[in-house]
Order: sequence, then structure tokens, then C-alpha cells
Amino acid sequence: MSGDARASWNDGAAKNAIVEFLTESASESSPRFIPVVDRIAAFDNDGTLWVEQPMPVQAGFIFQKLAQHVAANPSLAEQEPYKYIVNRDEAFLGRVAKQDPEAVEMFLMGVGEAWEGATHEEYEAEVKKFLASNHHERFGRPFTSLVYRPMLELIDFLKEKGWRVYVCSGGGRDFMRAISEDTWGLFKENVIGSAPEFEHRDGKFVRKSEMRGRVALGPGKLEQIFARTGRVASFAAGNGDVDIEMLDSAEFALVIVHDDDEREYASTSGAEKVLAAAKRGGWTLVSMKNDWKTVFK
Amino acid sequence: MSGDARASWNDGAAKNAIVEFLTESASESSPRFIPVVDRIAAFDNDGTLWVEQPMPVQAGFIFQKLAQHVAANPSLAEQEPYKYIVNRDEAFLGRVAKQDPEAVEMFLMGVGEAWEGATHEEYEAEVKKFLASNHHERFGRPFTSLVYRPMLELIDFLKEKGWRVYVCSGGGRDFMRAISEDTWGLFKENVIGSAPEFEHRDGKFVRKSEMRGRVALGPGKLEQIFARTGRVASFAAGNGDVDIEMLDSAEFALVIVHDDDEREYASTSGAEKVLAAAKRGGWTLVSMKNDWKTVFK
Repeated sequence: MSGDARASWNDGAAKNAIVEFLTESASESSPRFIPVVDRIAAFDNDGTLWVEQPMPVQAGFIFQKLAQHVAANPSLAEQEPYKYIVNRDEAFLGRVAKQDPEAVEMFLMGVGEAWEGATHEEYEAEVKKFLASNHHERFGRPFTSLVYRPMLELIDFLKEKGWRVYVCSGGGRDFMRAISEDTWGLFKENVIGSAPEFEHRDGKFVRKSEMRGRVALGPGKLEQIFARTGRVASFAAGNGDVDIEMLDSAEFALVIVHDDDEREYASTSGAEKVLAAAKRGGWTLVSMKNDWKTVFK
Repeated sequence: MSGDARASWNDGAAKNAIVEFLTESASESSPRFIPVVDRIAAFDNDGTLWVEQPMPVQAGFIFQKLAQHVAANPSLAEQEPYKYIVNRDEAFLGRVAKQDPEAVEMFLMGVGEAWEGATHEEYEAEVKKFLASNHHERFGRPFTSLVYRPMLELIDFLKEKGWRVYVCSGGGRDFMRAISEDTWGLFKENVIGSAPEFEHRDGKFVRKSEMRGRVALGPGKLEQIFARTGRVASFAAGNGDVDIEMLDSAEFALVIVHDDDEREYASTSGAEKVLAAAKRGGWTLVSMKNDWKTVFK
């Protein structure tokens, strides 16, 4: 990329395609020119900006909370989705890990109920405490240090070229907002994700159980991006099947391929369809193994 | 204000207070310093950025649409809110004009139904056609030329000082987005307002009848700003009672006083409470008559 933002990318097709697109899209004389108003970039989070194996970071946070919630409300132990969580039901948890929309929706219903009535400040403090006191089981490091350095460089490069950069994840909007400014250098308002409705009561923002719009997966990603920006993203980056609609609507689509068992993970589970779509659409594939000099921040 | 942005403001207490706050809030050594992340400004629209007399611009647009909708669906003529619209019920329309939350909510329910199933492109084309083919009854000019020049200058001044500027109105998000870039110089994503949910279907964003969150009036303004930005606005400008919560949550609150019957309107109807709150809170009052050299764009 430009300046320091070049440092973690190896020369190759992916880097070339990115530099070429971001240069041409800023040039009025190019057929690939993108007007300033349309320079919106959207990045998926789990597996695109940080490690999502063996499960998305937020899933661990939610498991912990729901277990506490069931302990405090024992009658829930037999109900969905609590019974799956308490019994660590492999099939269900596997579906959540792969961001299967139905499982994620059920999971988020549990989330809605567990945090209903919490103030935003309370919720944010819980997120920060979780991230400060838990390490990744394989790497033994805080999750926020397992953010991909090349992607942070790409975010900076996009900003230099006049793009407004958003993160759009099926994960929780407010979970991500707790880290967006320190970790990604993106304002909270640049984070789009699944979120509950809030009510302003007695000077506080209080979480309600119902969601604000759909889960930001699949077509839900487009709906959330549109609600926020009034547009689709012209530049999109993702790594899973739930990113297909967002990638397909973009002028330039980037797909992170997890093929680096040594430094990160090698897995195409939950990415079969997006890899096929990338091939059909001529999207830019990023091989973690070959295209990145450095993986982590 | 600074440079050209000074042009339309007379010297006086209001201008001084604004310049002082925006200078001090950018200075780390000042007790009024506002960290960059918190530099969010929110402006009400009707009566704060453009003329809202004799009724909000969007109300005319909606009356027209609902009359067509009832003509196409005659059984609606006896139902709320259609019967009020068709019969031009003064009491109801007066409540809408004053942005009474209950009347606005009912009004928006009608709006939701009238445009249900319309694509975003269709809706935006209708807005643009309305604005291009209707003039203000008193001034005989297009509505978009009745935007207040001093407020546009203030928006530019805020941007210069590193503020992210949002418009937050009880009016329709997508109605305002149709004009935000050309008229205010603000990206669509900087517009916060009342909005329907959308569904992405067959490559189009299609309007649903239900709303996304509450109407952006009173506490609803705070909720919509929080959903968008994760914060409250540190700088807020408004002119009506429905702006009180937003103004009260800000470090600096500006209230436009409509006291200029000659160049615009003199009316405190619907602003009685905000003027009292301004007095109690030491908010900055802007006299349209005395503080503005030029009123319109």
C-alpha cells in the first residue's frame, strides 16, 4: 500500500489489484472512477479483521453471560437457546460458529434477553472486562492483538484515498464499538452490526430485548449498511458465505482466504459459497499465507 | 465565523459564544476541551436549517401522497389518519405542524402504509419531483433555496474544527437524504431521522410499513443519535420543544428564535418549553432578526 501502509503486504496479484483499484477509483479520467459520495468501504469483522477460530470472539463473551443468566434463572435451562449453551450442544454451537443465520438469530434472542435493561455503560464495561481478562486459547494473547495488520493498513490506505470506512458484522454493534477506536482507528459511528433497540430513560441508554432491524448477515448486511449510509458499499471485504450479498453489491470485492495453518488457521468451512462466488465474479482473493508478510498487529 | 463562514452573522452574543466554544473545545489546555471522538454535532432540520412555516416542507409532500393513496383506496377515507388529511382537519394538522409526537406518529403510520413496497429509488424520485415542482407559498421560491445561510456557514465552521456534523430531525431520513449532499454538503450517512425498515429484495431496497426505532422527536432524537453514533451530540442546535432532550444532552446548545416577521416568521408556537429550558440552562439563543445579516442561502 502507500507509505507505511505497504509494509505487511507481499508483492502479488492481491496487492496489485487493491493498489490499482484505489488509484483508479480516485482518478476522474478513469473508467473505474468512484465519485467521492460513493466512496464507502465495508469490512466484515470476524475472519476479516481478526481471528474467528475456533469460534468468534464475541461467542465466548456471550456463552459466559448466558451461563450466568441461566444460573440466576434456572427455569431457562430447558429452553432454547439456553439449553444448547448450558449443555454445550456441539451441533448448535457449530452453527453459530459458522454464522448460520437461524442459529445466530436464536442466539441473539438469548443475548437480547440476557442484557435487557442493562445500560450501555454497563454493557460496555462487561465487554472491556472480558477482553482484558481472556486470552485466545491457542495464541495465548489478548484478542485485540489478533487483529490483522495488513487489514489495518488497508483501512488507512482507503482513508487516504477519501473513503469512509465502515465495519459491518453480524456480531454485536456495541461489542465492536467498545474496541473500534483503539483497535481499528474507526469512530464508533463507523461500526455497523446487529444491535438491540435502546430506550433513553432517566439520562441513560437502556437495552431492550428486541433487535433493531435484521441480523447483519447475508441480505441483512446490505440492509444495515443502507440504513446507515443510504447506499451500498463500493468497496467490500469479507471471508464467509454470509458476506456474499455485501461483496456482490460492491465495485471491488476482496475475500480473505484462510490458508495459513502455521500463522493462523487453514479452513474454508463456511466459506465454500463465497469462494465459488469470488471465482465467478472475478473478486480479489487474499491468500493469508502468500499475500501477507505479517499477520497480526 | 472563520473566513467566509463569518459573512452572514452579525457581531453579538450568539456569534461570540459559538466562536468561543468552537475555539476552546479544540484546545487541549481549555477546560471546555472536547476530545476528537466526542466532536459530534447534531442539527434539527425544520426551523433550524430551513423554513418550517406555515408547515414543515415534508408535510406538504405527505399530504399530496396520502390524498393520492386514499383516492386509490377509497375505504381508507374514513380511517385515521387518512380522514384527517382528506378533510384537512385543522386540529390534527396543527398538531403535526407543531410536531406533536402522537400526531406525528399517526401521520408516519399513514406514510408507512402509503409507500409500503416502494423501492428507495422510486421514493427518492418522488421527493425530487416534489421539491422541483413546488414553491413556498409566501416566498415563491423552491424550498431548498429557503435554507438558512448562517447555519450552512456554521456547519462548515464545525467541520473545520474537526466535528462530524449530523442532521437529526423527526422528519423522514430518506426525504432529507435526497437533498443533504447538494443542499447542506453533508453525506447521506450524516442524516438521522425517522425511517421505515427496508428489505433487500431482487437487488432493490424496498420500504416496509414498520418504522426503524422511534420517531426522532424528544427522547427519540437521542435514541436515533445514539444508535447511529454510539454517543450523544456534544454540540446541538434546534428550535422546538421536541429538541429539548437533544439540546440538554449537549455541552453546547443553540436555539434558533424565530423573531423575524419581515424576512422569515415571528412565532414561538411549539417553542415555549425550549425557550424556558434555554433560559434555565444558559443555552445560546440566536435571534434571527438581530444575529443574522442574511437569512437565506
